[in-house]
Amino acid sequence: MLKKLSDLNHCSKDDFVAALANIFEHSPWVAEAAAALRPFAGIGALFAAMTTVVDRAPDEMQLALISAHPDLANKTQRATGLTPESSAEQDSVGLDRLSDAEYAAFERANRAYRAKFGFPYIVCVRRHTRDSILRDFERRLPNDAKAEMRRSIAEICRIAALRLDQLVASEDRLPVHGRLSTHVLDTHSGRPAAGISIELTELSDLGQPRVVARTITNSDGRTDQPLIGGRPVPIGRYELLFSVGDYFAGHGVPMADPPFLDKIPLRFSVSEPEGHLHVPLLVTPWSYATYRGS
Amino acid sequence: MLKKLSDLNHCSKDDFVAALANIFEHSPWVAEAAAALRPFAGIGALFAAMTTVVDRAPDEMQLALISAHPDLANKTQRATGLTPESSAEQDSVGLDRLSDAEYAAFERANRAYRAKFGFPYIVCVRRHTRDSILRDFERRLPNDAKAEMRRSIAEICRIAALRLDQLVASEDRLPVHGRLSTHVLDTHSGRPAAGISIELTELSDLGQPRVVARTITNSDGRTDQPLIGGRPVPIGRYELLFSVGDYFAGHGVPMADPPFLDKIPLRFSVSEPEGHLHVPLLVTPWSYATYRGS
Amino acid sequence: MLKKLSDLNHCSKDDFVAALANIFEHSPWVAEAAAALRPFAGIGALFAAMTTVVDRAPDEMQLALISAHPDLANKTQRATGLTPESSAEQDSVGLDRLSDAEYAAFERANRAYRAKFGFPYIVCVRRHTRDSILRDFERRLPNDAKAEMRRSIAEICRIAALRLDQLVASEDRLPVHGRLSTHVLDTHSGRPAAGISIELTELSDLGQPRVVARTITNSDGRTDQPLIGGRPVPIGRYELLFSVGDYFAGHGVPMADPPFLDKIPLRFSVSEPEGHLHVPLLVTPWSYATYRGS
Amino acid sequence: MLKKLSDLNHCSKDDFVAALANIFEHSPWVAEAAAALRPFAGIGALFAAMTTVVDRAPDEMQLALISAHPDLANKTQRATGLTPESSAEQDSVGLDRLSDAEYAAFERANRAYRAKFGFPYIVCVRRHTRDSILRDFERRLPNDAKAEMRRSIAEICRIAALRLDQLVASEDRLPVHGRLSTHVLDTHSGRPAAGISIELTELSDLGQPRVVARTITNSDGRTDQPLIGGRPVPIGRYELLFSVGDYFAGHGVPMADPPFLDKIPLRFSVSEPEGHLHVPLLVTPWSYATYRGS
Repeated sequence: MLKKLSDLNHCSKDDFVAALANIFEHSPWVAEAAAALRPFAGIGALFAAMTTVVDRAPDEMQLALISAHPDLANKTQRATGLTPESSAEQDSVGLDRLSDAEYAAFERANRAYRAKFGFPYIVCVRRHTRDSILRDFERRLPNDAKAEMRRSIAEICRIAALRLDQLVASEDRLPVHGRLSTHVLDTHSGRPAAGISIELTELSDLGQPRVVARTITNSDGRTDQPLIGGRPVPIGRYELLFSVGDYFAGHGVPMADPPFLDKIPLRFSVSEPEGHLHVPLLVTPWSYATYRGS
Repeated sequence: MLKKLSDLNHCSKDDFVAALANIFEHSPWVAEAAAALRPFAGIGALFAAMTTVVDRAPDEMQLALISAHPDLANKTQRATGLTPESSAEQDSVGLDRLSDAEYAAFERANRAYRAKFGFPYIVCVRRHTRDSILRDFERRLPNDAKAEMRRSIAEICRIAALRLDQLVASEDRLPVHGRLSTHVLDTHSGRPAAGISIELTELSDLGQPRVVARTITNSDGRTDQPLIGGRPVPIGRYELLFSVGDYFAGHGVPMADPPFLDKIPLRFSVSEPEGHLHVPLLVTPWSYATYRGS
Repeated sequence: MLKKLSDLNHCSKDDFVAALANIFEHSPWVAEAAAALRPFAGIGALFAAMTTVVDRAPDEMQLALISAHPDLANKTQRATGLTPESSAEQDSVGLDRLSDAEYAAFERANRAYRAKFGFPYIVCVRRHTRDSILRDFERRLPNDAKAEMRRSIAEICRIAALRLDQLVASEDRLPVHGRLSTHVLDTHSGRPAAGISIELTELSDLGQPRVVARTITNSDGRTDQPLIGGRPVPIGRYELLFSVGDYFAGHGVPMADPPFLDKIPLRFSVSEPEGHLHVPLLVTPWSYATYRGS
Repeated sequence: MLKKLSDLNHCSKDDFVAALANIFEHSPWVAEAAAALRPFAGIGALFAAMTTVVDRAPDEMQLALISAHPDLANKTQRATGLTPESSAEQDSVGLDRLSDAEYAAFERANRAYRAKFGFPYIVCVRRHTRDSILRDFERRLPNDAKAEMRRSIAEICRIAALRLDQLVASEDRLPVHGRLSTHVLDTHSGRPAAGISIELTELSDLGQPRVVARTITNSDGRTDQPLIGGRPVPIGRYELLFSVGDYFAGHGVPMADPPFLDKIPLRFSVSEPEGHLHVPLLVTPWSYATYRGS
C-alpha cells in the first residue's frame, strides 16, 4: 500500500490530498497547502514542507489541529472510533490492554491535562512505553499553555513523520527508526555464543511486564534481526534475559550444581528512540559483563 | 545459653547427656555413649566422637534414629509438636509459611518418599532453600533403601553439627558456616561505591521471592556484615539488586534520561553452603561486570 | 597490472603460461598443464586446477618444484637475484632487515634443514612473522622427509594462492585475506571513544619490535581501515598501544596525577592468518577490559 | 636497632638528642628543642613536636636546615660523604646507578634549581621514582623562593617522618606506608588463579626499566606479601606482567597456538605513595579486565 513519491509528485492535487489527509490527524489542510509546493526531491523535503505549513499556521489553526487528536487510552472514544492511524498507534504501545491501575492513571492524567489546558494531551506514542507516557504527563503538566502548544505541535510532527514513513516510498528515509541489538561473546571459549535463547521484556511500574521479543543467537552470537528495529525503540525500562546455563551445559562445560549463572538478566532503559542501542553480553560460567555499545 | 566445652568435660554424665540429648533428634543414647569418651580436646573431637557412635550403631538403631525425625513441612506434626530444634530449623527456611503450591509439592514428596522407604525424608534444611529441598527430594527418590539410609545418616550428622555449633562454646569451630559477600567498585570514578542500597532476595520456582537482606555499602564499598554469614549459605537461587541509579545521580554524574542503568540485578545460585561466595559489582553509569570472587 | 580472468580464459596458451609462470616459483609447467583445462568459472577453479596439477605430479617433479625455491633470508642468493615475487614476499616480513642475531638464527636453521632433507625450507612467509618462522623451523626439523615434502608442497600452494590473488581479478576471491580490527568504547561516558591514537607493533624475541600500523579512532571508536587487512594477518605476537590518558584529559575527565592509566598495551598473538581477529578495548580512567571478539 | 619510645622518653637529654640528631639532616637543634617536651604519648606526638619546632624556627634556621641537605645524585658529594640516612635514601630510588642520560638530567636540574634559589632542591626520594623526581623538579622550578622554602620544609618533614618510623618503635604508627597489591581471578574456571608468575617493573622515560618485585600467586590468587609494602609506594609508572599462558597451559585449558594471551602487561601509575593501590586481574584465555580496586 506504499505510495511512491514520484506518483505523489505527479498525481492530481485531489489525489495528493486524499493520500496524505491523515498524516496530520483529521487535518487535510496541511496536505492541501503542501500540494502547491510539489515536486519534492525526497520524503525529507515533503516532510519539511508539511511541517513548515503547520509551523506557520495561525494559532487557532494549530489549536484546531491539536484538538483534532483523541485522548490516550480513552475507552469511550475508542468505542466511537479513532482514525485507523491513531488506533494502530495506541494499540502498538499496549494502550488497548492496560491494567486497571494503568487505566486509572491514564484517566487521571488526561483529565488533569484537559482541565488545565483545554486540549488533549498529545504524545508520539510509538516512541514510548506506558510508563514513559505517564512520566511525560507528569513532567508536562506544570508547563504553561504556550509551552504545551509548542510541545504538542512538536509531538504531532513526530507522529506525522512516522505516518509518512509508513505511507511513502522514497530513496531517502526520514530518521525515525531506532535499533536495539545484542551480541553474546563466550569469553570462556573465545568465540561468539551461538544458540543462546534471549527474551526481551518491557517492564512497567503499574502493569505487567510484556515480552516484546524472543529469539536465539546465530553463529556470530548476534540475532538475525535486531531485537527492535524498523521503528522507534520506545523510551522505557527493559530486561534482556539470556539462558546461558543451558548454553554452557550444552557445550559440556564443567559447572557448579546448581550452576552459578543460569538465566542472566540485563535491566536497562532506552532514552533515545531513534538511536542505535547495543547491549552486548560477555560471559563465562562464572562471570559476565555488559555495556552500552554502539 | 552456650555451654562451655570445659564444663561439659567435667560435669556429671547425667548433665552431659541432658545437655546434648537432642543434638541427635530424640536420641540421647548417642550422648550417653559419647560421655564415656570424655574429655574432648575440642568441639571437633566431641562431634567426631558422637558421629562415630552413630556410624557404628547397628542398623536398627540407625533406623530408629532416622524414624525419630519429623516430616518436613507437615502441618499435623507441627500442631502436635516438634522438638524446639526441629521447629526452629524448619522455620528458618520458611517451611512454616509456604505457598499452597509449595505445601502441595512438599506433601507429595513426603508421601512418595515414605511410601517407598518406610521412613521420613531427612535433609539438613539450614543448608537449603525450599526449591533446593524439592530438587533434592526428586534426586534421592530413585535411590535404593541402603543408599538412602546412608544419606539420611549423613544429613542427620550435618544437622547435629549445626546444633552442636549453636550449643557448645569451644576454641575450635566446626566448619559449618559459609559466607556471602559483595563489593561495589565505581569504575567511573575509580573508588569504592559507598551508600549503595542492596537487596538480597531468595528466588523460588513455586513460591514468592523472599527478601533475606537489605543493606547499604560502607565507605569501602562493602557491607559491614556479610549478606549471609555465621551460618550455612542455603543452596538456592538468589538475586542481588543494586540501586546504582540513585548512587550516580547523588554524585552528579551525567546520565541519560531515564538513566541507562538504574537497579542492577545479579542473579546467581549458591551450591556450597559452607564456602565463601563473593559476588562483586564493577559499575559505571554505562557498564557493569560481576564474577564469582573469593 | 591485474589480469582479468576472462582474458586469461581466452588468450593464447603462451600468453596464459607467461602470465602465470611464476605463480609456482620457476615452474611454468604447472601453468602449462592448467592451460588445457580452460575456461575456469572463477579464480577458485583456476587455483584448484593448478594445485591438482602439482598434487598429481610425480615425486621428482615435486622435488624439483621445492628445490626451485630460494633459502629464506640468504644474503648470497639475494645478491644473485630472486624472482620479484620471492623478493617481495621476503621483504614483506622484514627478512631483508634482520638483526644480527636473527640472521644467525635463520642461517643455522636453513643449514640444519638443508643438511637433513637436501632441499630448502619453504614456508609461506606472508602468513608469518620472523619469530613464527623460526618456531616453524624448529617444529618441522624433527619430521621425516616424506612429511616435509608434503608440508613443503602445502606451503608452496599457499604461496601460489597469494600470488594468484594479487595477479588475477575475478568476481570470486580466494580465502587468503584475514583482518585485525579494534574498537574503543569509553564506558566512563557511554560512547565510542573517538580520536584515540593507536599503535600496532609486531613483537620479536630476537630482533627489534616493529611498528606495523599507526592510526586514530573515528567517531564510531573504530579505525577507518582495519589495522591489518587485504592480506593474511601474520602469525605472531603483537602489542596494541592505546593513548587513553590524552583522550580522557582532552575530555576534561578528572584523573589522578600522574593518571592511573595513560598508554594501555594489549599484548596478544595471532594464530589464524585468514581469520578475523577483533581486539576491542572497554575503558574508563580507572579500568579496562579486552577480549577476543568477532 | 629500633629504639623504644619509652626509652627515649626517659633517657638523658644528651642520649635523646644523640639518637634523633639526624632525623632532620645535620640539625640536632630540632631534637634538642623537642627534648624539653618529653614525655610523648606516641610516635605521632613526637613527630608533631619536632615538626612544630621546625615550623616555628626563624627563616634563617629553616634556610640552614634546607642548606644542610645534599644535592640529589651528585657524584662529588657522594665521594666526600653523605649522612648514612641520605645515602640509603638516594640508593633506594636508584640514584646511585643512573644512566648517563639520567645523570645529565639530574645535574641540569640541580644546577638550575640552585642557581635560581641558592639552596639545594629537596624532595622525599622514598616517595618517588627517578622519573617523578625529574617531573617534580620541572614543576617546582617556576615557583618563587618563598613557596619553595615552604615546599622544601614540607619535604624535609616527610623525610623526617620516614627516618623516625625506621628508628623508633611505638604502639602507634606514622601514616607513612603505602601498599601495592594484586589478585588474579581465573574467570574461566571460577576460582582464584594460583601459581601465576608476576613481575613488577618500574618504568622510566630516560633510563632502563627496573624490576622491583618477582613473585607467584598463592592459593587465594593473591601474593603472600604485598608487591610493595611497609614503605611508601613511589610515585611513578609501573608495569605488572602476568604469565597467564603458562598457567592455563598447566591446567590443560584448550588454547590457540600460539595462545591468544601469554604474558599480560598492566601499565599504570602510582600517585598516592601512602595509599593502598589494588590492581587485580580477571582473566580467561580469551579476555581480561583490570581496575583500580581497594
